[in-house]
Amino acid sequence: MAHPASFTKTEMFYEGKAKRLFGVKEDASLIYQEFKDSLTALNGIKKSEMSGKGILNRDISSLVFRYLKKHGQSSHWVADIGVNAMVTKKVKIIPLEVVVRNVVAGSLAKKLNQEEGRDLEKAIVDLHFKDDSLSDPFINDDQAVHVLKVATEVEVKKIKSMALEINEKLKTLFLGIGLKLVDFKLEFGKFENGEIVLADEISPDTCRLWDVKTGEKRDKDRFRRDLGDVLENYRIVWNDLNKKYGTGL
Amino acid sequence: MAHPASFTKTEMFYEGKAKRLFGVKEDASLIYQEFKDSLTALNGIKKSEMSGKGILNRDISSLVFRYLKKHGQSSHWVADIGVNAMVTKKVKIIPLEVVVRNVVAGSLAKKLNQEEGRDLEKAIVDLHFKDDSLSDPFINDDQAVHVLKVATEVEVKKIKSMALEINEKLKTLFLGIGLKLVDFKLEFGKFENGEIVLADEISPDTCRLWDVKTGEKRDKDRFRRDLGDVLENYRIVWNDLNKKYGTGL
Repeated sequence: MAHPASFTKTEMFYEGKAKRLFGVKEDASLIYQEFKDSLTALNGIKKSEMSGKGILNRDISSLVFRYLKKHGQSSHWVADIGVNAMVTKKVKIIPLEVVVRNVVAGSLAKKLNQEEGRDLEKAIVDLHFKDDSLSDPFINDDQAVHVLKVATEVEVKKIKSMALEINEKLKTLFLGIGLKLVDFKLEFGKFENGEIVLADEISPDTCRLWDVKTGEKRDKDRFRRDLGDVLENYRIVWNDLNKKYGTGL
Repeated sequence: MAHPASFTKTEMFYEGKAKRLFGVKEDASLIYQEFKDSLTALNGIKKSEMSGKGILNRDISSLVFRYLKKHGQSSHWVADIGVNAMVTKKVKIIPLEVVVRNVVAGSLAKKLNQEEGRDLEKAIVDLHFKDDSLSDPFINDDQAVHVLKVATEVEVKKIKSMALEINEKLKTLFLGIGLKLVDFKLEFGKFENGEIVLADEISPDTCRLWDVKTGEKRDKDRFRRDLGDVLENYRIVWNDLNKKYGTGL
């Protein structure tokens, strides 16, 4: 594999709400991912640009992926590049948003009319079909496997068990900087040989993170719910993570 | 157990959208269920009264329960009484709407933007939380077990496997009168000893039934979608079921 410094991006082949994806000239098995400054919520209806968000989310995601790797959970991450990009392995994204929940919050609390903040005795995994045009509908395992056919039964089981293992590692990571991991969204990709690997990003855009002592939210709910100080809180997450774990990864 | 003719209803203790429930004077372990003439759809927003619907649904449900019993699947059904009622065992209803699907149709087709009518290679089971005030939200197994705690993990597995067994029997039953069982909703109840039993009703209000040859719908979609001839089609289902199976049950 070429040294990161020599990676050159080729043409953009995909632009999502939060990232731009390019090829890597030196290695066709890699992807060059730029983290955008855009914030979106309510399935893209609410939009904003926050200068510096892409840098923070790249830094946080990269640190989280490196932490997971050190603790036995590999991902698509290969190397950071520039200030707001990373080079990752090329995978075919499985169109499932895999949501792990430790605490009742967000859409689940609303749907079941439950108060936000109740700890679950056991973490649960919810699946959504990743499709913007359908607003990423909530689905069950049977629908994923037999209706949408986006994964086999064995793959769904594997993905859910990986998600729960990652949850255990992430809970420890964030608790180390005084944050409670309420819930988070993962995406997984597949290599050509069928191997499934953690992909996408893990950042305050994709996690709910509550300060253990004050209850303060340090995640995208600050944007969704107009709580203000969005990037200031992302920056606290990054600074604390980097101070605690930066030198060891 | 007293002979059906001697069952007397006591005070009404519950009125749902489709049934009124009373106690049975002679036996506290039984319930007297009257099938109403009301039709509701879209979670109660769309309403109508159709004189004679209660009689048809009682007759159809009763025949289906008797057929299932003959084929090894017991239910809460004990005996018919009057023209539009049945006496059933008293159970505590588990607040889950258990939907079995053989064909993509209805809300599933809409949610995933799929054409109605595609056969699934394998029947699937969807769960909804039975709560009118929340519009019976679609949930997954984890939410039923760990968030709502309406059933244990073992009970959810049992319910789903019972639902799939019932599906096999019902497919055969309806195919015998030229109808394709597209999907249907079941409810289960629990005895005090924890045993789970099929409850509620099985009728054109709770099943999608398509004529195998013509594709004609013979179920509540005629009401939901304003196709007309609602009761005429329920009556065809009843007449054909009674002709084919009535004397053997």
